[in-house]
Amino acid sequence: VAKRLEKFKTTIFTQMSMLAIEHGAINLGQGFPNFDGPEFVKEAAIQAIKDGKNQYARGHGIPEFNAAIAERFKKDTGLVVDPEKEVTVTSGCTEAIAATILGLINPGDEVILFAPFYDSYEATLSMAGAKIKGITLRPPDFAVPIDELKSTVSKNTRAILINTPHNPTGKMFTREELNVIASLCIENDVLVFTDEVYDKLAFEMDHISMASLPSMYDRTVTMNSLGKTFSLTGWKIGWAVAPPHLTWGVRQAHSFLTFATSTPMQWAASVALRAPDSYYVELKRDYLAKKAILVEGLKDVGFKVFPSSGTYFVVVDHTPFGLDDDIAFCEYLIKEVGVVAIPTSVFYLNPEEGKNLVRFTFCKDERTLRSAVERMKEKL
Amino acid sequence: VAKRLEKFKTTIFTQMSMLAIEHGAINLGQGFPNFDGPEFVKEAAIQAIKDGKNQYARGHGIPEFNAAIAERFKKDTGLVVDPEKEVTVTSGCTEAIAATILGLINPGDEVILFAPFYDSYEATLSMAGAKIKGITLRPPDFAVPIDELKSTVSKNTRAILINTPHNPTGKMFTREELNVIASLCIENDVLVFTDEVYDKLAFEMDHISMASLPSMYDRTVTMNSLGKTFSLTGWKIGWAVAPPHLTWGVRQAHSFLTFATSTPMQWAASVALRAPDSYYVELKRDYLAKKAILVEGLKDVGFKVFPSSGTYFVVVDHTPFGLDDDIAFCEYLIKEVGVVAIPTSVFYLNPEEGKNLVRFTFCKDERTLRSAVERMKEKL
Ligand SMILES: CSCCC(=O)C(=O)O
Ligand SMILES: CSCCC(=O)C(=O)O
Repeated sequence: VAKRLEKFKTTIFTQMSMLAIEHGAINLGQGFPNFDGPEFVKEAAIQAIKDGKNQYARGHGIPEFNAAIAERFKKDTGLVVDPEKEVTVTSGCTEAIAATILGLINPGDEVILFAPFYDSYEATLSMAGAKIKGITLRPPDFAVPIDELKSTVSKNTRAILINTPHNPTGKMFTREELNVIASLCIENDVLVFTDEVYDKLAFEMDHISMASLPSMYDRTVTMNSLGKTFSLTGWKIGWAVAPPHLTWGVRQAHSFLTFATSTPMQWAASVALRAPDSYYVELKRDYLAKKAILVEGLKDVGFKVFPSSGTYFVVVDHTPFGLDDDIAFCEYLIKEVGVVAIPTSVFYLNPEEGKNLVRFTFCKDERTLRSAVERMKEKL
Repeated sequence: VAKRLEKFKTTIFTQMSMLAIEHGAINLGQGFPNFDGPEFVKEAAIQAIKDGKNQYARGHGIPEFNAAIAERFKKDTGLVVDPEKEVTVTSGCTEAIAATILGLINPGDEVILFAPFYDSYEATLSMAGAKIKGITLRPPDFAVPIDELKSTVSKNTRAILINTPHNPTGKMFTREELNVIASLCIENDVLVFTDEVYDKLAFEMDHISMASLPSMYDRTVTMNSLGKTFSLTGWKIGWAVAPPHLTWGVRQAHSFLTFATSTPMQWAASVALRAPDSYYVELKRDYLAKKAILVEGLKDVGFKVFPSSGTYFVVVDHTPFGLDDDIAFCEYLIKEVGVVAIPTSVFYLNPEEGKNLVRFTFCKDERTLRSAVERMKEKL
């Protein structure tokens, strides 16, 4: 394996999902729903396949989907963007992240990352040869440590990666936090790469896009995807919205990473993004019910549950159960209890910082959530 | 844009396909069929979507597709591989190339590339920081210059990239050529990355996989895809087969480039790979008829047409028509004649070497091919 990837292991999502299958455990680990996406989106994909929309899309996306993304971006942020010059369709948000980082970051560039983080951020920064500076968000509220941030950002900083609503903690960046980050970025000429795939799963406050803050659009790459909002994580449709000078870098990397993204799925995604508001209202209502079941259940089991404002994840402190660290706890949980969670230490530059915390997802039907809670009540 | 991508332009396929649309020209440029893929494969995708196969696949592929790939690899090469440890599903062969190079090549590693080459090879090697050594295949037969190859391969060589049947020339690597490459690789401990997406479009000789040569499997990554063989270029399903120690590198990069590939399309691809032999017989018969129309037509028009043994491409010398170089010729062809071809100079390390050559594809219905020939006869 090349040095740029030497230190990374099989992703924890793969490891845990494999163990789940092997042990017949209930999988509250990797974030994929165990229910299906909406019929109208599936129907649109089927129609596209039948209609022969099966050849290469343009590298940056089919015109209809680029337009639908621009429309949604306008609805979400108030900003008008050119679908032809500022929108790039990618094979999932993971590819958007890779294309953004490989397309815009040079070896030696300093990039700030908030820990815990989705593991691909660190790996892709490492592929790009970036110099990573980590800032840890700490429980109970995972607030941005403003002073530490201020002393970390400098003229040498090339970019800050943010993720809001935040995986794995469910934290949402507040307007105050975003304002501080924004003014530091403007002052020091820093880019922002923001992963907002859980933007429609914002429960406790309104989601705020960094791009919507004054003077920020011009230095921001906003990434999103279809999978989480439409319960179709397996379709791998993502995108990046950015001003033309940043889009150029994203597209260049994208051209050579995957060239183009599934054509029929892009047709379906165009239909999805034009879903009526009622779709999102129902989605949130369903997820709030699931969240209540899991959060109350975990509390009853005896975990210390940290508040989660968005995403379909919640993080807990597992130490009441007396195990050494998060990995030992998750192994016990799978083998002895039959439930899968995700250890968080793999999402930190310094794994020690995550050793008390594990993540559960509530993107499962209510019966599954209740059974998982039952198993834990019985056996933990 | 990051330095690693600075020298690259918008891919020529995108440029030319955009011009085709703008000028209403007949597109014999980018290699996508203007006819649809087979019903049984489309039907399998539709069924998978209906059946709710819509969540994340495993990173390296759904078990059924990994198994189908291993089966086909056995049929094609006689080699038995472990679908769980030696097969990785990717989002098209372009991603397989990126994952292989980023996963296995270190900055400064010497890699040998035969020119002309599919443009992503050079760009991805550049992303990996490889030191590229080019060897040019020259018309009329695009044979491997054995002496030059021998003096280029050394203990410093990390890998050789090959592509057979070869895009853009249609050249197929002969057993003699592959034997020479193989013995040089064994002698100097060199890897082979081989792109074989046109393996089922081998007309004038049998396709030979490098992996099938004695002692070569252990040092070879064999890449392929669904798109060309099943006329579904827009589905973006590819894969890499390699021994476990190389698969590890490919998978690590893949994990962080796209993580996983479209689940319903993998189900359909599993069905496709189990097509009866008659499917491939008919495919070849159809393509031979198309090829005859294009090749005879181009000769009648007055081009010097170089023999193409495989792929759906043919390369011609355009100089009888008096234009300076391939790009000028292609621009004239689009604007004044209404036909799109691909200039080849972009596929060389030294663009000068390709300036007499342009590529046409015959992956279009016969009527389209005939109209293109008519236009050229009339206006060139
Ligand atoms: C590759 S898993 C993608 C992110 C996610 O779903 C998770 O964090 O579980
Ligand atoms: C991105 S185009 C992929 C290869 C191909 O079809 C071509 O060479 O035209």
